[in-house]
Amino acid sequence: MSEPPAASPRTPDATRRSERSRRAIFDAALALVGEAGYARTTVEGIAARAGVGKQTIYRWWPSKGAVLLDAFLDLAGRSGGAEAETAGGLPDTGDLAADLKAVLRATVDELNDPRFEAPTRALTAEGVVDPELGARFVERLLEPQLQLYVERLTAAREAGHVRPGVDPRIALELFVGPLTHRWLLRTRPLTHAYADELVEYALHGIAAR
Amino acid sequence: MSEPPAASPRTPDATRRSERSRRAIFDAALALVGEAGYARTTVEGIAARAGVGKQTIYRWWPSKGAVLLDAFLDLAGRSGGAEAETAGGLPDTGDLAADLKAVLRATVDELNDPRFEAPTRALTAEGVVDPELGARFVERLLEPQLQLYVERLTAAREAGHVRPGVDPRIALELFVGPLTHRWLLRTRPLTHAYADELVEYALHGIAAR
Repeated sequence: MSEPPAASPRTPDATRRSERSRRAIFDAALALVGEAGYARTTVEGIAARAGVGKQTIYRWWPSKGAVLLDAFLDLAGRSGGAEAETAGGLPDTGDLAADLKAVLRATVDELNDPRFEAPTRALTAEGVVDPELGARFVERLLEPQLQLYVERLTAAREAGHVRPGVDPRIALELFVGPLTHRWLLRTRPLTHAYADELVEYALHGIAAR
Repeated sequence: MSEPPAASPRTPDATRRSERSRRAIFDAALALVGEAGYARTTVEGIAARAGVGKQTIYRWWPSKGAVLLDAFLDLAGRSGGAEAETAGGLPDTGDLAADLKAVLRATVDELNDPRFEAPTRALTAEGVVDPELGARFVERLLEPQLQLYVERLTAAREAGHVRPGVDPRIALELFVGPLTHRWLLRTRPLTHAYADELVEYALHGIAAR
């Protein structure tokens, strides 16, 4: 992740060409890793599929892991799902349950989106067995998303909607953990109804009062 | 998974030899997949490491996936962790919180056990990208464990400790999902204190009353 293409334009035309190459490289990287898996994806393969020289890729990224991570960040930024809210944080209408349901439903849609699913599975699986890649994945992609939950839950606690002693960093895992578990391991269908029920259970607990 | 070795003994000596071979094959399979990953583990490699002929493996199992799954089932059966309770179900002392904490703490210890960790990561990661293997993993290994939670939570609901409307199959994911998520993605340390807090949050919810 040395110098991103858009940061070194010489002329408007060169900028446009760079942006086109960058987009082609990202698309090729995501398609390849989704089809062939992480291990069988190579910088050579990405370059061939993107119609650029291998050196074009190495000029901007040191490794296939770096290209893929940037491609994912770009995908997450363009997606219509939960990550689209990153800039502004999670919705805060004052109704915590409704806001969390909206976010989890969007996440369900994103995880069920075929364009998103195959490459995300490939990168996540590789992070499960490769601690170094996993740490970068968490630091750059996952943790910034989880922080949005921390912020929303902290605001809810201040507003008196969440119990005073609750740690938002642990509480958020009640929403994100089960959803990801169900998706990754395909134990049961990932639906809006499930997202809603998860929010109810996590907010109100399962114990009798 | 054709005929298991212990099922076709001719003499006591042959049975002992079969059992020794089976143990050596399982140990070799788990060690290899933990070291080299699923894709680079082969029946040939397992046979060489176990000191048996390739045909010995193919006599008992149709593929490397089948050997690995049986090796995992065997490991889970021998482990001191949560799966050891499979036969008798989860503990039921009448104190749901205490019982769930005991089970989740044992699961934490098991997930942190190096002997268990590398092969489990390798198989789980492969199941994430290979739906067919993932389905067998869930059906034979994961779902039987999850059913123990269903039984314990159903009993707790009947005893009036869980709210009447709660679906145990969804509720169990509040415990298992976050724990697995934290372990797989290595977001934060997996500790007993975390297991306890998870149980408290899931039982009592995070919303203010």
